[in-house]
Amino acid sequence: MDKAGLIHEIFEKQSFLCVGLDTDLERIPRFLLDYDDPVYEFNKRIIDATQAHCVAYKPNIAFYESLGSKGWDSLRKTIDYIPANFFTIADAKRGDIGNTSRMYAKTFFETYAFDSITINPYMGADSVQPFLDFKGKWAIILAITSNLGSQDFQHIQENGEKLYQTVVRKSFDWGNDEHIMFVTGATHPKELAEIRALAPKSFFLVPGVGAQGGDLDAVVKSGRNKDIGLLVNSARSIIYASDKEDFAEAAQAEAARLHEQMRAYF
Amino acid sequence: MDKAGLIHEIFEKQSFLCVGLDTDLERIPRFLLDYDDPVYEFNKRIIDATQAHCVAYKPNIAFYESLGSKGWDSLRKTIDYIPANFFTIADAKRGDIGNTSRMYAKTFFETYAFDSITINPYMGADSVQPFLDFKGKWAIILAITSNLGSQDFQHIQENGEKLYQTVVRKSFDWGNDEHIMFVTGATHPKELAEIRALAPKSFFLVPGVGAQGGDLDAVVKSGRNKDIGLLVNSARSIIYASDKEDFAEAAQAEAARLHEQMRAYF
Repeated sequence: MDKAGLIHEIFEKQSFLCVGLDTDLERIPRFLLDYDDPVYEFNKRIIDATQAHCVAYKPNIAFYESLGSKGWDSLRKTIDYIPANFFTIADAKRGDIGNTSRMYAKTFFETYAFDSITINPYMGADSVQPFLDFKGKWAIILAITSNLGSQDFQHIQENGEKLYQTVVRKSFDWGNDEHIMFVTGATHPKELAEIRALAPKSFFLVPGVGAQGGDLDAVVKSGRNKDIGLLVNSARSIIYASDKEDFAEAAQAEAARLHEQMRAYF
Repeated sequence: MDKAGLIHEIFEKQSFLCVGLDTDLERIPRFLLDYDDPVYEFNKRIIDATQAHCVAYKPNIAFYESLGSKGWDSLRKTIDYIPANFFTIADAKRGDIGNTSRMYAKTFFETYAFDSITINPYMGADSVQPFLDFKGKWAIILAITSNLGSQDFQHIQENGEKLYQTVVRKSFDWGNDEHIMFVTGATHPKELAEIRALAPKSFFLVPGVGAQGGDLDAVVKSGRNKDIGLLVNSARSIIYASDKEDFAEAAQAEAARLHEQMRAYF
């Protein structure tokens, strides 16, 4: 999906919600374990229940990977099940030397047909470039992350510029807002505003609303642009809203609640 | 494998060679494509041919992942085939928020029984800690990488300390040389020496000898300690020494050549 298509979906639906599919066998309702592929059954019902309220889905690859090859089969069925008008994000935080990043790009853009993948920028230009070489696909580069450990290295400062700012600035040497987004954690609205100043036209993937404590209103005030320019992710607070048979209804209710909050910004 | 065990293997064999299993369906000899699992067939023969000369094997996870669930099956068979007296490294460059890093740790330490995994430190303490919580397992943290892009962010400097130095220094708040190693690219012997000064007792995983142009003698001079303290990885120059039926013999010859060079340091 290209940028214009994404903006169209956001305004059509008056939503910039991304539902995180952090599907954990140990947390899904017990009755699903009777199915052949409990992870896929769970995802299918979550997708059915939430699609009126969101514009994107973000499987967290770690959760699938931890199940071995079976988990990758569940991932494939999930990505095939997501309708074409949703933006899909492989939350994989990959990045390696050029020939290896090319393989990761192939994995998520070809073997699994994701629109985008999250990228860890530590290894620099040639670790990101192979992802940008895929036409029509997106690299979502970590700038400031939502976790506590984001303070350890991302704030290191040289000549008055912090690492997360350097990452954003340099990435414009590699590509543009038509195929690069940034991860900007909801828990850091001040940094989000700084990054918006550096990247006025870019989309940001904003994790951390919900279980991690980020506030939607603060995110929108710090980060929105005329296209909205935000994909706000919520995972656990939606998909684990209930651990009973009614989990899909509970997920829908939580997604609808966030959707309702989002409508106010259009 | 613990540190004493690794040192024992290194001195017993007079080798600190790690063979990188960057097994690419498009580069392996064509006749292997007639087998059910060409990737595993290739790896098995490479392992048979090189095991007299190395102490560690490092599958590059991207290459397996790119083949979908079939690739993960090849990886499992490969890891099961490697004898117990070899140190195994999942070269995966993972790292995410705590609950997600825990899933990655589960993947590589439990679902696949690797001794260690390479970790990208960009997200800080709580992204690394879950890997350190697994007893008897190792986190191999990226410090200075072998690629050109290592110059983009790893040299950013605050108060006279460069990012790769900060990573090494901070990691000692999280753990010690019994379960943390560092990635220090062979292409940067000066930085390798600086990191050795910060981490005198630690093991370093040193990629970049061979196809990437790093020089073994410079690496040893800059980085060795009394335990050797180095695992020098070579992948393409060994496993693709020939693309014909004689590939295993050619791999053996190249591994033997490096082994012979290494013996001189004991």
